[in-house]
Amino acid sequence: MYVEQLIEKLGMDNVSQKESILIRHGYDESPHKAVEPDVVCFPTSKEDVQAILEIARNNQIPVTPFGTGSGLEGSSIPVKKGISINFEQMDTVLEFSPENMTVTVQPGITRFRLNDYINSAGLYFPVDPGVDATIGGMVATNASGTTAVRYGAMKDQLIDLEVVMADGTIIHTASKAKKSSSGYLITNLFAGSEGTLGIITEVTLKLHPIPEYTIMARCTFETINECATASQQLLLSGIPLKRIELMDAASVAEVNRQNGYKFSVRPSLFFEFAGAKQAVEAEVELAQTILDNLSCEHWSVALDPDEQQELWKARYDLSYSFQSVKGMDEVGADVCVPIKELPELITYARELIDETGLKGGVWGHVGDGNFHTLILFDPLVNGERQLAESVNEALAIRAIEVGGSCTGEHGVGIGKQKYQELEHGNSLPIMQNIKQLFDPTGILNPGKIFMN
Amino acid sequence: MYVEQLIEKLGMDNVSQKESILIRHGYDESPHKAVEPDVVCFPTSKEDVQAILEIARNNQIPVTPFGTGSGLEGSSIPVKKGISINFEQMDTVLEFSPENMTVTVQPGITRFRLNDYINSAGLYFPVDPGVDATIGGMVATNASGTTAVRYGAMKDQLIDLEVVMADGTIIHTASKAKKSSSGYLITNLFAGSEGTLGIITEVTLKLHPIPEYTIMARCTFETINECATASQQLLLSGIPLKRIELMDAASVAEVNRQNGYKFSVRPSLFFEFAGAKQAVEAEVELAQTILDNLSCEHWSVALDPDEQQELWKARYDLSYSFQSVKGMDEVGADVCVPIKELPELITYARELIDETGLKGGVWGHVGDGNFHTLILFDPLVNGERQLAESVNEALAIRAIEVGGSCTGEHGVGIGKQKYQELEHGNSLPIMQNIKQLFDPTGILNPGKIFMN
Repeated sequence: MYVEQLIEKLGMDNVSQKESILIRHGYDESPHKAVEPDVVCFPTSKEDVQAILEIARNNQIPVTPFGTGSGLEGSSIPVKKGISINFEQMDTVLEFSPENMTVTVQPGITRFRLNDYINSAGLYFPVDPGVDATIGGMVATNASGTTAVRYGAMKDQLIDLEVVMADGTIIHTASKAKKSSSGYLITNLFAGSEGTLGIITEVTLKLHPIPEYTIMARCTFETINECATASQQLLLSGIPLKRIELMDAASVAEVNRQNGYKFSVRPSLFFEFAGAKQAVEAEVELAQTILDNLSCEHWSVALDPDEQQELWKARYDLSYSFQSVKGMDEVGADVCVPIKELPELITYARELIDETGLKGGVWGHVGDGNFHTLILFDPLVNGERQLAESVNEALAIRAIEVGGSCTGEHGVGIGKQKYQELEHGNSLPIMQNIKQLFDPTGILNPGKIFMN
Repeated sequence: MYVEQLIEKLGMDNVSQKESILIRHGYDESPHKAVEPDVVCFPTSKEDVQAILEIARNNQIPVTPFGTGSGLEGSSIPVKKGISINFEQMDTVLEFSPENMTVTVQPGITRFRLNDYINSAGLYFPVDPGVDATIGGMVATNASGTTAVRYGAMKDQLIDLEVVMADGTIIHTASKAKKSSSGYLITNLFAGSEGTLGIITEVTLKLHPIPEYTIMARCTFETINECATASQQLLLSGIPLKRIELMDAASVAEVNRQNGYKFSVRPSLFFEFAGAKQAVEAEVELAQTILDNLSCEHWSVALDPDEQQELWKARYDLSYSFQSVKGMDEVGADVCVPIKELPELITYARELIDETGLKGGVWGHVGDGNFHTLILFDPLVNGERQLAESVNEALAIRAIEVGGSCTGEHGVGIGKQKYQELEHGNSLPIMQNIKQLFDPTGILNPGKIFMN
């Protein structure tokens, strides 16, 4: 019955129960079990979103937003079924202001398309989680990725959000000013909330000047510990690194094996320096001096785009290398710890993986303290999945114990609910109260973030 | 009776009803009417703060936190009397981690003392509101100041807060990791909340490397509009300016008059470039090229600290110049607008001031869109105060109309309550619901932020 109401409000073309469509909205890139929604809506406006929420409210139907399905923690899987909202028809740039260095977009635009739109004005949106996710999805998971060391996570890019609340009210979380001390700063409540507090219908983002000049570099160290120390020293030097990525030796070996490369099988650091040409050249020189003093090996620098791609190949090919092992499934971790704990945690991760006897790699956004593991298992061999997952579990708990977080950038979704109490302690009931306040009947993406 | 309970819990020495103490906790640097608390507490620990809140809860007594009394919007004035909490005995550095580039402090430490503690490790805490405020007060008002163009406001420095909630629960708003997608991001709810949602007892802050080298510079343009355009062009160029400050011609004239200087009476821009020496030199060269193309005048550069102080003299002496006019009181605005609206708003501010016939200046943190006015009035002349305040009112309303905020960095306190509905619209009831949720009996700094 509510499906007819949806059709009446949104039109036949914007409501689908086709099996292929339902299937596509039931999974993401995570290993979590697929659950298909009962119906998928394709709103074209905030008023459509209001109408969907009104029908959902009146019929007590769960509503789960969906971007491109590239999530890694099941945030968009409608575990309680109901309505999946796909934002592909709300993908417009509403206002681009180069003078303000801001852009206002609908949530369905992807970051590549956004950059295509704005790059000719000399500006870009630098947050880079790897895949071409929607901006709405990136806000909803507080995504970040390789450039967070310089630009921060999604929460740091937000000027204002327009949100349709569970009761149908449309709010703006803030003004369009760059900063404000007015009212309460509620914008970041929605960053990483995975659609559980409201449905985002507009996002105003900070933009950044495209760096004039880029230099990429790579080096290796004998130990992970030395890589971490080097990373700390570079950050302390004040060099505004755009990227600093770590790969452990096992990951390099796997990339070599899969692709026939001959990268030296050592813990490796990958760097991107970007800015005004002379400044970047000075920074690279300084970085090299610092790294030389720390006995780095295989320091190499790439100036032109082709060379740069070549030099970063190992890092780019990394997750694909693991994914492409035939017949194998994978599970991954996403912990983030205070930087001084990073060497211990990465060493611990490596030991845990080695103990399982499974194949796996460790790499990370070493400037933020955020790192990932990827462990391959054979889904047909009894116990292998559990073994792989036990590594994630031990890592998440250890990360929280040393003052870190069970998820640096993928979100809580389905897999990290069980760590919420350990990580948030006394503030978890406060988060639950906020959820209750914003969504009293629990129609917004139920079954996420909290355990029940 | 509750005062005896406070004395019993905190000890005689930590509870005061001395008249001089009460008077000192009744006012700040704003023109708002002083209101003395009934008693001032000097807690030495979070447990003391818990005890104060328990007694306040049981006796339904208002509690208002107090830093150094340097606020500009009356946030620390206990308008409903009751207990003022002074944090001068909670001013310790609890944990300093150069490797993490973070520090955990108690709220009563001031930013100068914090910097004294950490500077020898090559790190600094760059947020600079001018005065030597406490870190707790700076969080509570989401303070920022001249360096926000590069480092952001207080909200952007926060890793984790420890907060005693109205019900006595002690929470940590986040982990100690640099980023996280776990739970809801509640840290920024407390930034700018002026003690109305909980009492902050610990703050973990991001730190930044002390720039190796600094160059300061100054130039003038014929119009405010050209200053704003120049500012936009510099930001678009990607130069990581540490400071870019604007002063209107009337302000320069007043500084000259007060101090006998001969600065050219033109709209002026003041710059600070900071970073690695070669990078800074390259950036200044690029800035000069950009500014030359925009027909700037009187470009001058200072390399050594003495010269630098000399060159920034006009800017430094600015607010003091107005304050030191004998027998005159002053009111000031603190609006923040999208940067492209800045020329119009500043021109409007200048016109409004000129129309009153009163003396006043306009200056601003032009990289953020945040600017201030200061208007002098004679408190003995009937109607002058109202005239001066009418300028503030018109400016606040105009700022909100163009998508900006009534307060960029001073806070809502007492003076900006009346604009909350206009600025926040539908999100104001949500903010009020959050207040109700966190502080159901309304003991935390009542009479602030909201109108009732």
